[in-house]
Amino acid sequence: MSKQVQVALLLTGNELMSGDTVDSNSSRIALALGAHKIGVGKKITVGDDPTLLSDSLMDLCASADVVIINGGLGPTEDDLTAELVAEVAGQALANHPSAIEHLKAWCERRGLELNASNLKQALLPEGADLVANPIGSAVGFALEVNGALVITTPGVPVELTAMLPEICDRVASRVGGGTVFIRRLQTFGIGESTIQELVNARTDDWPNGVTLGFRSGLPQLELKLQVDDASLLDNRDEAENLLHELIGDHIIGYDDEQLAMSLQRALLDRQMSVTAAESCTGGLIASLITREAGSSQVFGSGFVTYSNTAKSSVLSVPEASLAQYGAVSEPVVLAMLAGALEKSGADIGIAVSGIAGPGGGSDDKPVGTVWMAWGTTAHHRAIRLQVPGSRERFQILVAAIGLDIMRRQVLELPPIPHYIQRFIHRAS
Amino acid sequence: MSKQVQVALLLTGNELMSGDTVDSNSSRIALALGAHKIGVGKKITVGDDPTLLSDSLMDLCASADVVIINGGLGPTEDDLTAELVAEVAGQALANHPSAIEHLKAWCERRGLELNASNLKQALLPEGADLVANPIGSAVGFALEVNGALVITTPGVPVELTAMLPEICDRVASRVGGGTVFIRRLQTFGIGESTIQELVNARTDDWPNGVTLGFRSGLPQLELKLQVDDASLLDNRDEAENLLHELIGDHIIGYDDEQLAMSLQRALLDRQMSVTAAESCTGGLIASLITREAGSSQVFGSGFVTYSNTAKSSVLSVPEASLAQYGAVSEPVVLAMLAGALEKSGADIGIAVSGIAGPGGGSDDKPVGTVWMAWGTTAHHRAIRLQVPGSRERFQILVAAIGLDIMRRQVLELPPIPHYIQRFIHRAS
Repeated sequence: MSKQVQVALLLTGNELMSGDTVDSNSSRIALALGAHKIGVGKKITVGDDPTLLSDSLMDLCASADVVIINGGLGPTEDDLTAELVAEVAGQALANHPSAIEHLKAWCERRGLELNASNLKQALLPEGADLVANPIGSAVGFALEVNGALVITTPGVPVELTAMLPEICDRVASRVGGGTVFIRRLQTFGIGESTIQELVNARTDDWPNGVTLGFRSGLPQLELKLQVDDASLLDNRDEAENLLHELIGDHIIGYDDEQLAMSLQRALLDRQMSVTAAESCTGGLIASLITREAGSSQVFGSGFVTYSNTAKSSVLSVPEASLAQYGAVSEPVVLAMLAGALEKSGADIGIAVSGIAGPGGGSDDKPVGTVWMAWGTTAHHRAIRLQVPGSRERFQILVAAIGLDIMRRQVLELPPIPHYIQRFIHRAS
Repeated sequence: MSKQVQVALLLTGNELMSGDTVDSNSSRIALALGAHKIGVGKKITVGDDPTLLSDSLMDLCASADVVIINGGLGPTEDDLTAELVAEVAGQALANHPSAIEHLKAWCERRGLELNASNLKQALLPEGADLVANPIGSAVGFALEVNGALVITTPGVPVELTAMLPEICDRVASRVGGGTVFIRRLQTFGIGESTIQELVNARTDDWPNGVTLGFRSGLPQLELKLQVDDASLLDNRDEAENLLHELIGDHIIGYDDEQLAMSLQRALLDRQMSVTAAESCTGGLIASLITREAGSSQVFGSGFVTYSNTAKSSVLSVPEASLAQYGAVSEPVVLAMLAGALEKSGADIGIAVSGIAGPGGGSDDKPVGTVWMAWGTTAHHRAIRLQVPGSRERFQILVAAIGLDIMRRQVLELPPIPHYIQRFIHRAS
C-alpha cells in the first residue's frame, strides 16, 4: 500500500518548543533529499516527552515510507530517541558492538576515557543498522518500524550534514529517487515579481522542463533553475541565457556569490584596486570587501570618517564645504572620494555620507538620505538617494548599492541601474 | 476532558517543506506564549496539500486546546487556510463585513483599488471572529473547531509579530496562563559549562524558584533568569547578584545588548572616544561600533590598513618594522595603534593585524595568528593570539575580543580575561 508521504521528519527537543532554538536541521535534510528528487511531506516537532514522542512516531510510521528522527541521540537523560524507537518497534535495547567501537575510537582521538554516559550512546534497539557519524560521538541508526524505515540523526548541525550523503542513499534505495539539476544564480537590485513579469512576457522562448524558483534575502535575491533530467541540461542553459538577456546586469554570480566577491573578480580581471571612504556605513563596505578571501589582491586601505573633523583631517575634505553644504552633500562625498583615491592609490573608489538614523534627520535631509560618489579620478559621479527602513537595513542596502555601483562601472554595465530609480531623491 | 497539549501549531507552506525557508515564526509564537506561561506542545508542518492539511488540523484539534495555524492567508490560489478551517469546522465560507472594511481601509491607505484577489481574503468561515492585523491586508480569525479554539495567523513575520499580543490574550483566556518574569543577560568570553560549574559549586547560595537558561550565539552567550511568580522577583535579583559575583566581568548587558553598545555606554560615561586600526578584520570593528545608534558620540574615525603600504602611508608604521618583523608583529600593531590614536585624536584604540586565512599562513605564523594592541597613548599593551576556525569565525572572534578588551580597559576590569588563555599563543 502506498503511504501518504515519502519522507516524514520527527524533530525532537524542548529547545525547539520553547522558541529558544530555530530549527534549521529540517531545512538541511529537505534540501539534501530534494537534490535526489525525494520530497519531505510532513514534519512533527515535539519536546522530550515520551508519550508525545511515541504517539508521533507511530503516526508518522503509518503515513510515511521513511521517517527521519532528528535529535535526542546524545549522552544525557533527555536523549530519548533510542528508547523511543525500541519501544515503538517492540525491540529490546542492547549494546551495539560497532557503536562501542566507534565510541572507543572517538574517545581515543581526543585522549578521553570512555565513560558510562558515553556508553549509553551504544545502547540501541536490537537489529538496528548503524549510520556512520564521521564527526561526533553519537551514531545514527536505521531500523524497520511498523512498515516504515526509521533513520535517527544527531541534532548537531555539522554532524547531521556529514551524515546526509549516506542518509540520502538509504532513503533513495527505499523510495526510489533520482537527480535534479539545480543552478543557482545570485542577483541584486531587482525583485521577484519584476523578474517573473519579464519571463512571463517571453513564455514562448522559455525552454521546456525548466523550473524557475526564487529565494529572497537581504540584499540579494537567489534564482534557481531546475531540470529533472540530464537530457534537459541544454534547456537549463537556454533558460539561463534568456535570463542574461532579460536581467543580465543584475546577475552577480553563481551559487552563494556575494556582491563583494563579484566586484573582486571584476577588479582582478582588469588588475584594478578599490578603496572606500565611509561615513554612514561606518566600515561595512570595507568589511564586506575583506570578508572575501583574496581581497588583499584588490584592496589596500579604507577610511571610516564618521565625524566632520575626520573627513577634513583624514581625507582633506575642505572645511568650507562641510560648513556650507553639510556633511551629507555632493561636494563633500566628491571630496571624500578624491581624498580616498589619493591616499590609497586605488584605481576606483566609493564614498558615502548619509543619515542612518534613528536620529539626525531634518526636513531638508530626512533619515535615509544618502549622498554617494563613485568612480576613478577621471570618471566619477555622485547621486542622492533616499533609502527607507531601519538603521540596520539602511546600512546593509547602502553598502550593497555602493558595491554594485562600482561593479557596474568596472564591468562597463549601465551605470545607473533600474532599481536606483526607487531610491532616487526627488526635490519636492 | 483535558487535552494532550495546551497549544499546538500547524505551519503551512511548500517553502517550509522544500527547505528553502527556515521556519522562525513558530519560535516567535512560542516565545510570546512562553512569557504568559503557556507552552506549545506539538507542531505539525505540511505543504499546501488539502488532504494533509485537513488530516493534520483534525489531528491537532483532537489533541490540543488551541491550534494556531500560520501561513496560507494571502490572496493567491495556494493560500488555503480559510477553506481548510471551513471544511474541517463544517462551515460555509462567507464574506466577512469587518474583513472587507479592513481591506478597503488597507487599500485606501496605499492608493490601491480593492480587486478580486484581495477580496478573497475576506472570504472566511461563518462564525469566524476577526483577529486584527495592524499591518498587512490579511486578517486572522478565531473559530471553534471540534472542541479546539483555532486561530489563524499570517506568514509574514512583521504582521505575525504585530498580532501576537491579541493572540496571547485569546489563548490565555482559553487555557489560563500567567506571567513569567525573564531577565536576559548577555555575556562574552565564557562558556555554558563553565558557568554551570561555577553555579553548581554555589548551590547553597542559589535562590529558590529561579531557573537559569542559556542560549548560545557567536560571539555572545545569553543567560536567562526566570521566575514564575512576582513574589520571586527578589530571588531573581539575588541570582543575578550571584552571577555578578561569579562572572561579573563577562556580563556585558541586558536583553540584546552587543559588545559594541556596552563599550559605547562605558565610553559615554567617561566622555571618552575610540578608534580602530584594522588589518585582518578589515573594517569589521568600526562597522560593529557604528552599527549602534549614538556611535557618533564616541567614534570619529577608523582606519582599514590592509596592505603594508597603507600601514605606512596612512598610519605612519615604520617601513623598517614591517620589513624586519612582518605585518603580523608586536612592533607593527603598536605602531598602528599609535598612528590611529594620533590621526583620530581618540582617547583609546585597538589595532589588529593577523592571518585570517585560508591562505597566507607560515610555519612561524600559521593561519589564525593575530597580534592585537590596545589602550591609550599612556597605557597600552599588545598580545599575540591564535584564533582557530574559518575566516568568517576568525574575523568575528577577533573583532569581539578587540571590543571586549577595550571595554575592560575603560571599565577598569581585569585586563586579560580568563578566556584569552584559550587563545594565547605559546611558543613551542
